[in-house]
Amino acid sequence: MPASDIVLYIAEIIGTIAFAVSGAMVAVDKGLDLFGVIFLGVTTALGGGTIRDILIGKIPPSMFYNYYYVLIAFITALIVFIVASFLKRIYVENRKKIEQILNLFDAVGLGVFAVIGTQTGMAAGYDDNPFFCIFLGMTTGVGGGMLRDVLAKQMPYVFVKHIYALAAIGGAFSYYVLVVWCGLDITISAFISMFLIITIRILASHYRWNLPRVTLSNDK
Amino acid sequence: MPASDIVLYIAEIIGTIAFAVSGAMVAVDKGLDLFGVIFLGVTTALGGGTIRDILIGKIPPSMFYNYYYVLIAFITALIVFIVASFLKRIYVENRKKIEQILNLFDAVGLGVFAVIGTQTGMAAGYDDNPFFCIFLGMTTGVGGGMLRDVLAKQMPYVFVKHIYALAAIGGAFSYYVLVVWCGLDITISAFISMFLIITIRILASHYRWNLPRVTLSNDK
Amino acid sequence: MPASDIVLYIAEIIGTIAFAVSGAMVAVDKGLDLFGVIFLGVTTALGGGTIRDILIGKIPPSMFYNYYYVLIAFITALIVFIVASFLKRIYVENRKKIEQILNLFDAVGLGVFAVIGTQTGMAAGYDDNPFFCIFLGMTTGVGGGMLRDVLAKQMPYVFVKHIYALAAIGGAFSYYVLVVWCGLDITISAFISMFLIITIRILASHYRWNLPRVTLSNDK
Repeated sequence: MPASDIVLYIAEIIGTIAFAVSGAMVAVDKGLDLFGVIFLGVTTALGGGTIRDILIGKIPPSMFYNYYYVLIAFITALIVFIVASFLKRIYVENRKKIEQILNLFDAVGLGVFAVIGTQTGMAAGYDDNPFFCIFLGMTTGVGGGMLRDVLAKQMPYVFVKHIYALAAIGGAFSYYVLVVWCGLDITISAFISMFLIITIRILASHYRWNLPRVTLSNDK
Repeated sequence: MPASDIVLYIAEIIGTIAFAVSGAMVAVDKGLDLFGVIFLGVTTALGGGTIRDILIGKIPPSMFYNYYYVLIAFITALIVFIVASFLKRIYVENRKKIEQILNLFDAVGLGVFAVIGTQTGMAAGYDDNPFFCIFLGMTTGVGGGMLRDVLAKQMPYVFVKHIYALAAIGGAFSYYVLVVWCGLDITISAFISMFLIITIRILASHYRWNLPRVTLSNDK
Repeated sequence: MPASDIVLYIAEIIGTIAFAVSGAMVAVDKGLDLFGVIFLGVTTALGGGTIRDILIGKIPPSMFYNYYYVLIAFITALIVFIVASFLKRIYVENRKKIEQILNLFDAVGLGVFAVIGTQTGMAAGYDDNPFFCIFLGMTTGVGGGMLRDVLAKQMPYVFVKHIYALAAIGGAFSYYVLVVWCGLDITISAFISMFLIITIRILASHYRWNLPRVTLSNDK
């Protein structure tokens, strides 16, 4: 395996862990039981890719034959549960710090998932359909988090959070343009696009960039 | 294109716009950001047809190669956002009036979507399965609104609103019966069924017809 | 039809009724109209199997050609609505007793649905994939209830309830192991696995066994 593939592979594992942690933490916050924590962890990590696979007719979806990622998400969620149970004080007191680190890893996950999603669409024969490929990239990146929020009864984070889906769309677009329109090597394109997403996410979090929203209530 | 097709086509555009407006307005009400407003607008307009296409195995779903409707829903949601942002006073003060007009257009949308959904099922080879075709018609009509409500954390409107899903079911049934059992021309059947749905919706809104519900709390 | 098939068949009908009752009762509690009550009843009874069918590419999902179960769920939900409307006092006063009986029937439903789901996955050619088959068993058992809860805006019961999903997973696992690894007869395996699920559920309800959960708030 070339070094670039190993980097992509590691990025995917980091992303899976980060997404599983975010799902498990939401579940712990909501007081769900062990099953709920693991289910939300796995869903957040693998839900986006599963929706993508259903949309391109890949049956069964990848998570059902690439056990590996399910196992990673499962163990990650279990560890979150154990830490939150037995190291409760540490978990609660370091919450802020955990979330800061998580945010960084989450950016890596969003980057690699959005690029893989776009790539999957292109490889499935939709490389003549930029809209669909970019949509698949976005869905792979943000779909798991949406399922997490709907199942945990909270407003989808992606509708209110600093430049999140837009970062995924930007990276998916960049990947599509670099590969299909510029004919650039897919590995180089993947790294540029992931770098773009990660940079946008880190800057947006740090400077608290937000998309505009309407505040009707102020006017009433 | 014969005149009847043009009328159906216009009805579909009106429906797409009306559904996108309803999704975008819910998003604005809930304080979502620009991405959330556009996502909910597009989902409300195209979600029902996408669920339908997944159920009949049409991969990828129509919205991914008929960009046109996505673009209409996108621009519509963007306009709602801009109006609500920059003409806030007008938006808030004319809310009631906007909703009345919207309700009319929404009826047109429900009518055309329910008929198209039923037609899509029949064209996909399920014309021997009235239950499935009518279900597909209903889903095309109300599925987008259900997704909107689930994503925006509100009780699905269709479960509580004046005769809404029932109007779609009635029209889908009428279309199926006229075409398959009576052998009537599909364009004429489409117009009769759309007219039926629009009439039911307008009457139900005007006279506040509601399906019965149980009020347990009164008894306690 | 051999006696064993008749028993399985009756179990499936009991399960369909129990799940439809649970969906309809949630809908009545939430004040939904007649359409909402029937929609939630049917979704709870048939939603799990429909998600399963989409995941294995069975198009259209079974519920659209096995009308029979839809009809049972429909009539069941209608009866719940009528009882709650016209025998309101009896319904409210016997609520506890209804739920106890329902819980028993629900266990039968969970048992038969989880086994059928696992069997469906195996019959679709995935008998070399235990993870997928067991996931399909679990989904068939708990997916309808999850859809019910998401649509009715309540926290999925399966995330907080006494050993529910775990019972389904246990039975699905047992069925897979008995048939594929031990080469046991499928009918005998089905009965053993259903018995296992029903026993776990009844014991878990009676002794109030719960999966552990983290209670962060106590510490704050």
